[in-house]
Amino acid sequence: MVDQIIEYIRNNKQRFIDELIEFLKIPSLSAQSRHKADCERAADFVRKQFSQLGLDAQLHPTAGNPIVTARHTSPENKTTVLIYGHYDVQPPEPLDLWTSPPFEPRIEGDNIIARGATDDKGQLFTHIKAVEAHLKTNARLPVNLIFVIEGEEEVAGVHVSEFIRTHRDDLKCDVAVVSDSSQYAPNMPALCYGLRGICAQEIRVQGPKQDLHSGSFGGAVANPVNVLCQMIAQLKDESGKIRIPGFYDDVLPLEQWEREAFAALPWDDEAFRQSLGVKALHGEETYTSIERKWARPTLDVNGIFGGYNGEGAKTIIPAWGGAKITMRLVPNQNPQTISRLFRDFIRKITPPTVEVSFIDHSSCGPVIVKRSAPFVAEALESLRRGFGAEPVFIREGGSIPIVLTIQQELNVHALLLGFGLPDDNAHGPNEKLSLTDFERGIRTSATFFHLCAQK
Amino acid sequence: MVDQIIEYIRNNKQRFIDELIEFLKIPSLSAQSRHKADCERAADFVRKQFSQLGLDAQLHPTAGNPIVTARHTSPENKTTVLIYGHYDVQPPEPLDLWTSPPFEPRIEGDNIIARGATDDKGQLFTHIKAVEAHLKTNARLPVNLIFVIEGEEEVAGVHVSEFIRTHRDDLKCDVAVVSDSSQYAPNMPALCYGLRGICAQEIRVQGPKQDLHSGSFGGAVANPVNVLCQMIAQLKDESGKIRIPGFYDDVLPLEQWEREAFAALPWDDEAFRQSLGVKALHGEETYTSIERKWARPTLDVNGIFGGYNGEGAKTIIPAWGGAKITMRLVPNQNPQTISRLFRDFIRKITPPTVEVSFIDHSSCGPVIVKRSAPFVAEALESLRRGFGAEPVFIREGGSIPIVLTIQQELNVHALLLGFGLPDDNAHGPNEKLSLTDFERGIRTSATFFHLCAQK
Repeated sequence: MVDQIIEYIRNNKQRFIDELIEFLKIPSLSAQSRHKADCERAADFVRKQFSQLGLDAQLHPTAGNPIVTARHTSPENKTTVLIYGHYDVQPPEPLDLWTSPPFEPRIEGDNIIARGATDDKGQLFTHIKAVEAHLKTNARLPVNLIFVIEGEEEVAGVHVSEFIRTHRDDLKCDVAVVSDSSQYAPNMPALCYGLRGICAQEIRVQGPKQDLHSGSFGGAVANPVNVLCQMIAQLKDESGKIRIPGFYDDVLPLEQWEREAFAALPWDDEAFRQSLGVKALHGEETYTSIERKWARPTLDVNGIFGGYNGEGAKTIIPAWGGAKITMRLVPNQNPQTISRLFRDFIRKITPPTVEVSFIDHSSCGPVIVKRSAPFVAEALESLRRGFGAEPVFIREGGSIPIVLTIQQELNVHALLLGFGLPDDNAHGPNEKLSLTDFERGIRTSATFFHLCAQK
Repeated sequence: MVDQIIEYIRNNKQRFIDELIEFLKIPSLSAQSRHKADCERAADFVRKQFSQLGLDAQLHPTAGNPIVTARHTSPENKTTVLIYGHYDVQPPEPLDLWTSPPFEPRIEGDNIIARGATDDKGQLFTHIKAVEAHLKTNARLPVNLIFVIEGEEEVAGVHVSEFIRTHRDDLKCDVAVVSDSSQYAPNMPALCYGLRGICAQEIRVQGPKQDLHSGSFGGAVANPVNVLCQMIAQLKDESGKIRIPGFYDDVLPLEQWEREAFAALPWDDEAFRQSLGVKALHGEETYTSIERKWARPTLDVNGIFGGYNGEGAKTIIPAWGGAKITMRLVPNQNPQTISRLFRDFIRKITPPTVEVSFIDHSSCGPVIVKRSAPFVAEALESLRRGFGAEPVFIREGGSIPIVLTIQQELNVHALLLGFGLPDDNAHGPNEKLSLTDFERGIRTSATFFHLCAQK
């Protein structure tokens, strides 16, 4: 039966690509309000895809872009799979770096080049076509399915979280799948089982009530920018270890098998160094680059400002200085706890000469899915069959808030099944998707539905 | 004879004020090219003032605004006094903070309110009127005089320095006077005998070749802004002492009499703290606020920048960060030496993960005039007689490059005889000059010419 499905996918691949091209032609940029109608058009395109397959598809308006849901339920199915995706895309600028217009999809060799090809239209399309393959060969689906496809992922829109929270009962499922990431390397499919969280803080150090003449006053008054630098310098030691008391208390240490698995992955520090253009790599001692990126918490200044930044010199003691700081968190660190520890420490090291204030920016908890979690084995086996290659079980250094929302609100594990490639240029010019991987992704998804039903 | 001069000044005060008003009406803003003709008009006004008195007055065109010189020489005079001043003014903006238009001088009580009233039209006018008083009561001047009045002081123009350098022989004199500063306090006239120098450096710390995703890369690569902060933090200890090796080697320590003289001045740390709006004062231990401001070197970040400074958060590792730093220098520190020590230290503390580069901004050496220097006693006595109050011998924390140029190029001491008040709002809205101080300044100048001839 699966063989028939695989054959259906092979036989219909060109039509799938043609339909994806229609989808990719819609400039559904969520960041630009003039593309609001395009976003609605993309949502409707997705809705129609589901309707044509006989799924119960609906458009849910929000204060932002609509959310599309689709549902297939059958009394004989034991398992319900929720699939998340997004139809909105990043702005294509700068346009001059594209070799062809971003919304005129072009096939070049094995790749389809267009904005949204991998992030996330192409990837979410794999699941739709997996559904089709099942229905057209077997007239039924082996699992119940719920799709939640949103249109504000690229602008960190809050509406999908709200939607999940308020539709908790409707969205009840056994496992969730998110295909918005990538393989570890070509022909090395991956299931991502860990994401870092984030705690973003802005601090402002206020000195004199206005900028002062550095000649007339310098020496007699603390310079808030010097103070800011001294405070930031105290946040980390030279090896990159964070010095905020209690910061590491909740960190889930890497297990031996993880360290071995990471070490077994193909990785070249020198190539990595060169790709970044840095003189030397840096980070906590006794951890490898992969461990530092995926599984260790960080503290980075994202921006710093204060005083004069124009041409030449301006001889002032600035009235204030500020910095935006993000900490990436690993399981089981809690962003609220970290925010409190950060502020307590900053207050403690603030000298009596200045005043400090804070702004809270985005925060999101880390995610981890144990190897023993439900459906992980099925996901890995699906990747193995879909890609014809041994999948790896990896983590990611970035943060995907929706994953935690799904896990917390629906009380299920969300499996990150990424079909793209690390060099697909998501968010960049000439975004692409391998047509081979597109087919492999459809196969993987179809196999996953099949295996979930066997469980 | 001096009594007659004093009487002439008193009798002609109103006319002097009327002429000053004409001078103040000219919006001679050197910072704005649309006021170039106004600057030329102001230069010509000054030239005419001298010509009417029979001095040999000349306009010297430069690539910027013209320099006015005027000369009075008599074979029987032993002493030549050079007087420096500037006819250009600061932009008056923000205009809404002025109670009357900045170029429509207004008398209010004892003050004349206009841009340039104290800085420097009113103050340079005192010397012109002192010349007139001598000539009109005595038909001669007791000293030879050379005036150098420039029009680019407010824009740190280089032309006057060039002019002095290239006219070194013509400008040969025994002493120079600069009236572009202020009394220590009302009725407390001052001779300023020390200025701090300056060494302005910009550093840039380069990390990755472009901004990086702080999730995907954070932890494995040094953040250049964190590094910049760590480096800046190492430049000073907690009490404000600079940690650059060799930085203090050439510092001329304060002598006991100076510390006593400073301590005897009226000063209130709490009032000072409140005026700045800081939570607490700060600076090197074992030095008073006045000593820190006037006679100790400093290091201040004037501006810092790197990464994202817009609204909200942007989760990047910035490609680079930079800072503008000025060090105020005291006698006998040399800006070139300090620049070298600064760079050597920065290079030494630069970690191997980043690259550092430098931009040199303005530098200028410190100035000190010993109490025993020629004409200091005469200057103090002139202030005593001109103001009818005991003058104080003070230093200033700022830097006035022209003073060092005069001292070095002409090999004479430049005496800073300031007639303004600390709250005259030079560079600010509602700039003013006390008409009483204007008259006292003319008396002081006239007395100084007289005493110099007696010497």
